[in-house]
Parts: sequence; C-alpha cells; structure tokens
Amino acid sequence: MARWEPDARERMVVAAVDLFTEQGYDETTVAQIAERAGVTRSTFFRHFSDKREVLVAGQETLSTLLAEGIAQAPAGATALEAVAQGLRRASEVMGAANRERGPRIQAAVEASAELQERDALKSVGLAAAMHGALVERGVAETTAHLAAELGVLAFKIGFARWTEDPSVDVALADLAIIALDELRTTAASLT
Amino acid sequence: MARWEPDARERMVVAAVDLFTEQGYDETTVAQIAERAGVTRSTFFRHFSDKREVLVAGQETLSTLLAEGIAQAPAGATALEAVAQGLRRASEVMGAANRERGPRIQAAVEASAELQERDALKSVGLAAAMHGALVERGVAETTAHLAAELGVLAFKIGFARWTEDPSVDVALADLAIIALDELRTTAASLT
Repeated sequence: MARWEPDARERMVVAAVDLFTEQGYDETTVAQIAERAGVTRSTFFRHFSDKREVLVAGQETLSTLLAEGIAQAPAGATALEAVAQGLRRASEVMGAANRERGPRIQAAVEASAELQERDALKSVGLAAAMHGALVERGVAETTAHLAAELGVLAFKIGFARWTEDPSVDVALADLAIIALDELRTTAASLT
Repeated sequence: MARWEPDARERMVVAAVDLFTEQGYDETTVAQIAERAGVTRSTFFRHFSDKREVLVAGQETLSTLLAEGIAQAPAGATALEAVAQGLRRASEVMGAANRERGPRIQAAVEASAELQERDALKSVGLAAAMHGALVERGVAETTAHLAAELGVLAFKIGFARWTEDPSVDVALADLAIIALDELRTTAASLT
C-alpha cells in the first residue's frame, strides 16, 4: 500500500478493494470497509448506497468528462474524433492510484456476478453519456449509438492495457485513442 | 388478455407483466404474481430466483439460439453473416405473446432502475454468447466483439419495431436483419 493520506472517500475505496482482494466481495461487509477506512458507517452511507457502489465510484465524474470532451470537440469533428476528445478528457482524472488498483478491481468484478452486473450497468451509463453528447452535436441516432459503444470499449481496452504494468511510462489517453483507432479499423473491416 | 391456457411459467410471466403495468414494479410482490398466475410461491421460486428474473425469462434460450445460428452459418460466412444467422435462429422462438407484451415490458424496464440494470446484464449475456460463438468460428477477438455488439443492437431495434404494431404482418427475423444491415452501413460511415 502506498503511504499517502487520501480523503475519506478515497480511503473507503482503497479499504474496499483491499478487503475484496483479501477475503472476497461476498464476505466483506460495509462495517468492515468503514472500520478499515477509519470512518463511521454513517459516513460510508453518505458516500455510497452499498458496498457494490464503491467499485464503480467515479462513474458520474467519468460520464460528465466524457460528455464535456465530446461537447468541446471542434465543430467539424467527426463522431469518432469527438469521442476521442471525450476519452482524452476522462483520462485526465485517472491517476496512479486508479492505475495501481485497476487489476484488483477487475479481479473482484470477475469473481462476483453481482459486481459484473453493476459493471455492465456502468458501461451502459458511460455509453449513454457519450451518446447524449453526440446527439447534442447533431450526430444521427444510430451513428451516435455506435460511436458511443466504440468509445466505451476503447476506454476499457485502453484502461486494461494501462493497468497491466504501472511501471511503463505511457498515458491512458494515448492507449484509449490507439484502441479507438483499432476499433475503427475493425468496424470498417466488418462491411 | 388473450384467452389461451399457457403453462405455469408462461402464466407467471403474463401475471408479472400485467401487475407491473397495473401497479408498478416496486409495488408488485412475488406472492401477488404467484396468486395471479394460480401457482404457489414455491412453484414461482422453482422457475425464477426473484421477480426481476421474470422479465428477462428466455435469456438463456435466446443465448443458446443465437450461438447455434452462428455456429451453423456456412464456413465462408463473414462475422456479420454469421450473426445474421444467429438472429434468424433466435427470432424463431418469439411468438405472438412476446410481440403483444413487448411494449409493456419495455415500459416496466424504463420505469425501474433495478430492471434497467437487469436488462443491461441481459444484453451483456447475449453479446457474450454471440462473441463466444464467433470466436469458436475463428473470428478475431475484436471483430467478434464488435459483430456481437451489432448483433445485440440489431435484435433490440428489430424487436422494438416488431412490437410497435402487432397487426402488421412482418417477421421479426427480417426486421432484425434489416437493422443489422443499417448498423453495418453506419459502422462503415464512421471511418
């Protein structure tokens, strides 16, 4: 564990990921997470509705940033160029702590049907945010839908590659945009 | 309500959709669904783990059929041609009852965050089934992923159009394949 002094919310995320890793998601209680993080149960519930929500913390921030990036793309940008701007914007908030715990969160999700479900919903939420921002730019419905799906997938692939080896000096934004480009090429080859 | 005499499972689905429509998903209990369907609570729980599962009944059958259709596509078929075969195969099991209750299920899902979540997971499950069947055919990972996503989307769009007006004499399979073709064109235009 790194020796930083994060705020209460961050401490709860760290505690939850550690406990899920040590003893499994099902066996971990909110009381244990709160105790490990040095907060009360009521503090926990001010931040999260249940233990499941801890692992998708940041979804709203990511959605907002993805949509912001898309909105701020130049007027002439294609749907995928706008998505790339969204990925750049969202990547800015992911720091060393996210990178370090990425694989452990992934392992916890893979071991729990309940978390897989929540994770799937998170993807749907991110796609909806991008879709909305694209439609707002005047992108046609189906194009917006597909571009948003590619965006979510690119972010996931990029994030997975980024967290594989935290010692490699590479930016998440660059990996996500490389993945988006791969997906674009694949989409073209489908037809 | 149509006057057919469906089996217990079908009766429970009908009862659940009716109750969700009449009084809302949150207000409906398993006991009420069982009573309306004329079965005991224990019969309900032999078929479904909770009330939420009633609305995604048939997911496993659909997954199996989508995968079967993909597996049975001719050896030279492209990924999307194989997906089209999956859509044809899965469409075969959707009958008049599915068509008639489609919009009410959609309304129940739209009104409940819990059901939206389960519905998102259903989509992930269907995509995973198609993805697996495509990889089995030797389709590359990313291509399989994208083709499966397009397949799920095509099935959803086709199903929504099919249920819009049950009096129109049109086959679900044809609508799903038209939607797949539209998505293919859109994917090409992204690049």
